[in-house]
Amino acid sequence: MNFVEKTIGKKSIYEGKIINLNLLKVKLPNGKESNREIVNHPGGVAILTYKDQDTLIMVEQFRKPFERMVLEIPAGKLEKGEDPETCGKRELEEETGYKSKNFNYLGKIITSPGFCDEIIYIYEARDLYKGRDDIGDEDEFINLKEIKIDRIKDMIKSGDIEDAKTVSSFMFI
Amino acid sequence: MNFVEKTIGKKSIYEGKIINLNLLKVKLPNGKESNREIVNHPGGVAILTYKDQDTLIMVEQFRKPFERMVLEIPAGKLEKGEDPETCGKRELEEETGYKSKNFNYLGKIITSPGFCDEIIYIYEARDLYKGRDDIGDEDEFINLKEIKIDRIKDMIKSGDIEDAKTVSSFMFI
Repeated sequence: MNFVEKTIGKKSIYEGKIINLNLLKVKLPNGKESNREIVNHPGGVAILTYKDQDTLIMVEQFRKPFERMVLEIPAGKLEKGEDPETCGKRELEEETGYKSKNFNYLGKIITSPGFCDEIIYIYEARDLYKGRDDIGDEDEFINLKEIKIDRIKDMIKSGDIEDAKTVSSFMFI
Repeated sequence: MNFVEKTIGKKSIYEGKIINLNLLKVKLPNGKESNREIVNHPGGVAILTYKDQDTLIMVEQFRKPFERMVLEIPAGKLEKGEDPETCGKRELEEETGYKSKNFNYLGKIITSPGFCDEIIYIYEARDLYKGRDDIGDEDEFINLKEIKIDRIKDMIKSGDIEDAKTVSSFMFI
């Protein structure tokens, strides 16, 4: 059964650099009315990056919502009109300095479907070779980490890996 | 290296029923200033729910940001002051009608650390028994689905399972 919530009103709260926020009024399947706070996000790409068959390259960066460093697979937001594969190859080189001879689409996830339309496209990058020397774009500060694949289950259980796109990407290994 | 972004300004954009939006001005490690659009979310709980050792109970519900039904493990938001375990047991019964004699904490994920502070605590529920008969809270409309665990990898690859907390929870199986 498809429980459609019909939009009967919409108010723009904020249009930002990365996200927009809209307040929707909806009609529920039982005829009652309710509000939905919806964040629009451009979406992004995350790249399972293989240094070799047993080792992933991950990035650690400061995440302001948590006021601390978070360990993630390389990732980035889609620019306007950019296709996910182009975005993924750009972010891979920006964040790790590597290009890939074997770059493949794995699947996609939605990060928080209750309130946000963000989609993250997941790719794998294998057969890496050196691209640019400097990593991070101008205002991005990154530590690179090499993580053995046989450690990731333990790192998830211990909380050392907690980022959902990163944890999700491991289901494609 | 810890690349702290120091908050040097904060403006509240929206205080809503579920989320708040703040615009922060930060000082980057290179001394430059930048803005961060930060969504505050109460966080939630998701429950890997075992009908039997080979079968999960999942829920399908309409997700307004995508304008369609999405298949997820049972989950819900933390109410103010509620501890995650209480929330998980409450949501399990509200969404599936079941209680569990074997309810265990598995770990946690952060859904979108670039802009949102949402944390989802993941539990497993085993040894189910019948609780309430009606499912869904008053304004919640849910289809229950039984999914065989040996199908989940294929369902992720095909896009039939795409919700990040759901995909992430399978790394705890």
